[in-house]
Amino acid sequence: MEFELTKEFRNRFQEALDTRDTAFILKTLTDIKPADITALLYEFSAEESKYVLDLLPIDIQAGIINDLDSDTRKKFLRIYEVKEIVYFLNHLASDDVADILHELPVKNREQVLSNLDLELKVQVTELLRYEDNVAGGLMAKELIKARVHWSVVQCIEEIRKQAETVSKFYAVYVVDDHDKLIGRVALQDLIISDARTIVGDICDKDIISIQTYQESIEVAEVMKKYDLESVPVVNVQEQLVGRITIDDIVDVITEQAEEERQLMAGISESVEVDDSVWRNTRARLPGLLIGIVGGLMNAKFMGLFEEELARITAIAFFTPLIQATGGNVGIQSSSLVVQSLANPGYVEEGLWARLIKVFFVAILNGLFLSGLVMGANIVLFGEYRLSLVVSVALFSVVVFASFIGTITPIVLNRFGFNPALAAGPFITTINDLLGLTIYFFIVHILLI
Amino acid sequence: MEFELTKEFRNRFQEALDTRDTAFILKTLTDIKPADITALLYEFSAEESKYVLDLLPIDIQAGIINDLDSDTRKKFLRIYEVKEIVYFLNHLASDDVADILHELPVKNREQVLSNLDLELKVQVTELLRYEDNVAGGLMAKELIKARVHWSVVQCIEEIRKQAETVSKFYAVYVVDDHDKLIGRVALQDLIISDARTIVGDICDKDIISIQTYQESIEVAEVMKKYDLESVPVVNVQEQLVGRITIDDIVDVITEQAEEERQLMAGISESVEVDDSVWRNTRARLPGLLIGIVGGLMNAKFMGLFEEELARITAIAFFTPLIQATGGNVGIQSSSLVVQSLANPGYVEEGLWARLIKVFFVAILNGLFLSGLVMGANIVLFGEYRLSLVVSVALFSVVVFASFIGTITPIVLNRFGFNPALAAGPFITTINDLLGLTIYFFIVHILLI
Repeated sequence: MEFELTKEFRNRFQEALDTRDTAFILKTLTDIKPADITALLYEFSAEESKYVLDLLPIDIQAGIINDLDSDTRKKFLRIYEVKEIVYFLNHLASDDVADILHELPVKNREQVLSNLDLELKVQVTELLRYEDNVAGGLMAKELIKARVHWSVVQCIEEIRKQAETVSKFYAVYVVDDHDKLIGRVALQDLIISDARTIVGDICDKDIISIQTYQESIEVAEVMKKYDLESVPVVNVQEQLVGRITIDDIVDVITEQAEEERQLMAGISESVEVDDSVWRNTRARLPGLLIGIVGGLMNAKFMGLFEEELARITAIAFFTPLIQATGGNVGIQSSSLVVQSLANPGYVEEGLWARLIKVFFVAILNGLFLSGLVMGANIVLFGEYRLSLVVSVALFSVVVFASFIGTITPIVLNRFGFNPALAAGPFITTINDLLGLTIYFFIVHILLI
Repeated sequence: MEFELTKEFRNRFQEALDTRDTAFILKTLTDIKPADITALLYEFSAEESKYVLDLLPIDIQAGIINDLDSDTRKKFLRIYEVKEIVYFLNHLASDDVADILHELPVKNREQVLSNLDLELKVQVTELLRYEDNVAGGLMAKELIKARVHWSVVQCIEEIRKQAETVSKFYAVYVVDDHDKLIGRVALQDLIISDARTIVGDICDKDIISIQTYQESIEVAEVMKKYDLESVPVVNVQEQLVGRITIDDIVDVITEQAEEERQLMAGISESVEVDDSVWRNTRARLPGLLIGIVGGLMNAKFMGLFEEELARITAIAFFTPLIQATGGNVGIQSSSLVVQSLANPGYVEEGLWARLIKVFFVAILNGLFLSGLVMGANIVLFGEYRLSLVVSVALFSVVVFASFIGTITPIVLNRFGFNPALAAGPFITTINDLLGLTIYFFIVHILLI
């Protein structure tokens, strides 16, 4: 069953570490899966963790280090010597080795790379050429490929040879003599075929493949759409150069969701609640500063109307209402656009058609809300003229904020930025200023 | 290569539909994968889509209908007769049939269920007992299982028998004579084993399994953590009752991200930008109304200080600054907590330890921001006393908003609500009121 990491267990383990009780440590760890050992080691210091790892078989060590998140691993590997890093990297798949090398200081990276086992070194050198956000940077070189003229028996022989190197596979890729991708044979079809059947006759030639330069997000979309658990990667000559498995894509999807969440909250670096106080503070300040600057601009702006505000103080009562509504409308609009950008695949409606629909939705919402507020204000305050002014301003703010909330993520996306930036404090600050400007403009025209 | 849905293609296809050019339609569709035909049909009406589907082989029809998103499919199947629904459901896997049945009106559901092929009916009846957010409601009954005493040859024979029914599988589950789950044999290990090897000797007995009652989110966590592409589901007697594959989990993860995004934006139902104007409006109003009610409460509250505001109008200039900062701090705090709740697995720090850290981060942020604002105000406005008041209020708001932003998702989660509710307009409205109250309280004490 699944391992449960409890406080008691952690404390018992800490004791064992303090007393260097290797017997207990080894006995405990033999029963736990590597993924759980990784979770356990997050609780201890780098030195303690290395001590534990050095007691384990090297392939398990490698798997655990591979499982660590990028930031933790970067710090962790600082206490490793180059030859120790080479030692465990030789037990990992090429895509994982490439990822870890990216995290090392450049000086160490060269040294480590040159000392890897030959075949791995060649594979990883090729992978390092790619950016880490494209298929080439995500793929692994390890896969099972068969020549199109092979028999099933020859194919199985190849599987037997590669059994050590390729950890999880679901199909064999079929290539011609120039390594051009022809098709794919699922293991289940291989297993029920007669031994002398030619692989080229039973393979599925109508397969989805990915180009090395396609972005990871696109790869995730394709694998989601066609329900694939792995996808072959080809170069421009259509030659098979690697494969991407679903577990790497699940990580891409999870990281994408986290990045979006952080952008919407205005947190500028990847941070966890459990990080240090300083790290937490530093990550939050930029987003907050944007709001502060906006707030000071708001104050300066309202200062221009000091005289009017002194005369009709009630004007000030409704600034929170106007600004909050503008903010909410803006966030709603931008979130929906961010969502539709994250789930492409259908013919995109023309931009104008979409904006016209946004316009109508904004008009409907605006009319309803401003009518409601008009009624509420008359009941609550008995002020007819001011109520009308507030309602007209609210209506205008709803319509403007809808537009800005819709356009901004589209524009950001067009220029290569993450559209989720448009759902964060940057946009709410702009909306606050916009709402205030519109409100006082209408106050100035209709009231004063 | 991947199919591209262009405007030209869609228009050409529309023409073919209008002229009932079946030859063209069939020729075009033969070259496109089912997942792409699904994307294409989103562009056309229900009647047109049904016309197209009826031209295709029944198993492809079934696959396409299965691929539709839940809401679209509900509307689409209204134009289907019961016997037509039975016809294509008989070509789908049990978990998909259960999902589609859930979407039918209860009257039709009973009728359809009773007319399914016998084996499918029995399987689906069992699955329908489960809620759709637990493993039992996510799993499929179709899997390959082998008795522990079988030989590899008998196992391959079973695979051959089940080849039609089980579409994608990567391993064979090994059970005893009472169907208790013993272990798992990966296809790659089966394929290189000698024909007379006993399955029980080569199977991996140390496998992860899921209980039927575990929540989907938990299943997703387990599959992510251990990099699984499928997981067996057992009942309380440890008997194998089904399996969950990674493609269903990828859907769970994607839907979870979408739901969170919508809650943070205050959109109350699942809606797309391309939905009708009315649907878009209806989904946005509740979130906006919360903000409106909050805004009116803000106005009433400020009304209590009408006299003071008339005297020292500059007090009003800083309400946007105070409220915006409170809102941003609150969203940052709640987003981080939502993230840590979404990625469980490590020993959770004690609640008190976490709150103390939040307290220190808030103090640091508050000191920095209020000091900055103090300086800016003195430069911009030359007002010492009011600047001090604003800074003290800002500091308090930062600390309070941090706490509320941290506590609320934890409390919501404890009571079974989605913690992302705490990052939406509900929380920003509470923060606005809180910020205003603290500000005027401090104004009242220090200034007036």
